Amino acid sequence: MLIVGERINSSRAAIAELLARRDEAGVVREAGRQVEAGARYIDVNAGTFVSDEPELLAWLVETIQGALDVPLCIDSPNPAAVRAALEKHRGRALVNSITGEEGRFAELLPLIKEHGSAVVALCLDDAGMPADADQAVAKGSRLVDRLLAAGVAAGDIFVDPVVRPVSTDGRAGLAVADTIRAIRQKYPGVHTICGLSNISFGLPERRLLNRAFLVVTMAAGLDSVILDPLDSKLMALLRAAEALLGRDEYCARYLRAYRDGKLSAG
Amino acid sequence: MLIVGERINSSRAAIAELLARRDEAGVVREAGRQVEAGARYIDVNAGTFVSDEPELLAWLVETIQGALDVPLCIDSPNPAAVRAALEKHRGRALVNSITGEEGRFAELLPLIKEHGSAVVALCLDDAGMPADADQAVAKGSRLVDRLLAAGVAAGDIFVDPVVRPVSTDGRAGLAVADTIRAIRQKYPGVHTICGLSNISFGLPERRLLNRAFLVVTMAAGLDSVILDPLDSKLMALLRAAEALLGRDEYCARYLRAYRDGKLSAG
Repeated sequence: MLIVGERINSSRAAIAELLARRDEAGVVREAGRQVEAGARYIDVNAGTFVSDEPELLAWLVETIQGALDVPLCIDSPNPAAVRAALEKHRGRALVNSITGEEGRFAELLPLIKEHGSAVVALCLDDAGMPADADQAVAKGSRLVDRLLAAGVAAGDIFVDPVVRPVSTDGRAGLAVADTIRAIRQKYPGVHTICGLSNISFGLPERRLLNRAFLVVTMAAGLDSVILDPLDSKLMALLRAAEALLGRDEYCARYLRAYRDGKLSAG
Repeated sequence: MLIVGERINSSRAAIAELLARRDEAGVVREAGRQVEAGARYIDVNAGTFVSDEPELLAWLVETIQGALDVPLCIDSPNPAAVRAALEKHRGRALVNSITGEEGRFAELLPLIKEHGSAVVALCLDDAGMPADADQAVAKGSRLVDRLLAAGVAAGDIFVDPVVRPVSTDGRAGLAVADTIRAIRQKYPGVHTICGLSNISFGLPERRLLNRAFLVVTMAAGLDSVILDPLDSKLMALLRAAEALLGRDEYCARYLRAYRDGKLSAG
């Protein structure tokens, strides 16, 4: 499983404070802990700072990559902020996210091409969010086709099916699983990715639902996920699911996690 | 999810003691707690008592059904024990299990027919255990076809894909999921069922793997499961998975479990 560590997000109060005072050591610590816990990309989101977002994202990239050799997931719908961050970024960033919305697509595609970035492709467009799996697959397919036609490599595309709360649509979880399966079948080289927490919006004990949802999406073939790698119970379940789903030869990662004392939350 | 409560099994030391001293109150308590926790059938297994097994299974049926209005899952490969238990059983029992082994099939089928029992159909035969999903589906299909031809109703058949440890075959978990999906597609009215614990044999933190495996099998369409309904973390994950997989309208069961304080283990 490719893990994108989601903790550096200004919607979290503790992170907003770090960003407000440009706390380099604090930001590097947050990034480093996620890398140690298994994150392959570190997501950076400074969306709540609005007008300062471009400068803050660029600062986050410089600060984290000044201390750690890790690629970042540039998490913003704002092309100016994405541009500022990519200009500082070394190696292949993951831009989160492009959509089929014409304005956003037209502004982000040249940036992705220029910097050779990977990109999260959200299954939505100017007609809105998908209402079911068929719509998500249709919106996602159009977007993937356009990215491929523009010369983005299949392996640099991460399709996000758009997760809606199961509290408002009982079929929302099934729709995500069906979308993942369909996209994988249609575009074998393309990745699938999603966040977990939208599924549980409006319900109690959200972490329990998010955890079960991780296994549901992995069973459908999800190969990348945006999550908090410091959530030990979630990560323990992820390692267990990898072992169960034939993605962990000889259960080697599972056994290593056990020896490292990382499965005891189970 | 149809839950078969697995606790009354003589391979557990505490249960062996209850059975050895014919502790009626203790057995009824074990059964009652499982019914309260959501079990639809109570599994009874006295296999370790060997020569006393028929008499003990019959005693278990009389004792439990003398106090509780619940059907039992008669868990024995021994036709004499199954016969003794079914003769005491009121209502439709679930016999666990018939297989494609000729001797066992020939002895158990008449009992099932005579008592109108439901039956767990294990995907194995005289050629042995299935080595992969294709073999499990083939063995299971032959068995289902024979049961249907003998007049057993589709809704009284519970196909068990035979769970092998993922420690000895990394594809064992996927094979179970693929078998469940294939049997459901081929025989829409037939149930699928399995136990969870074989999957984790030989690995540490088995309950973690068993929990993840429950979600994997539910995502594949498993509709019945043999488990310990007093394992609160397992049951919490089961309720979460039902909500996520569109099997819990308006998340009603999930919310009731939350109000009853049963999800806090999450």
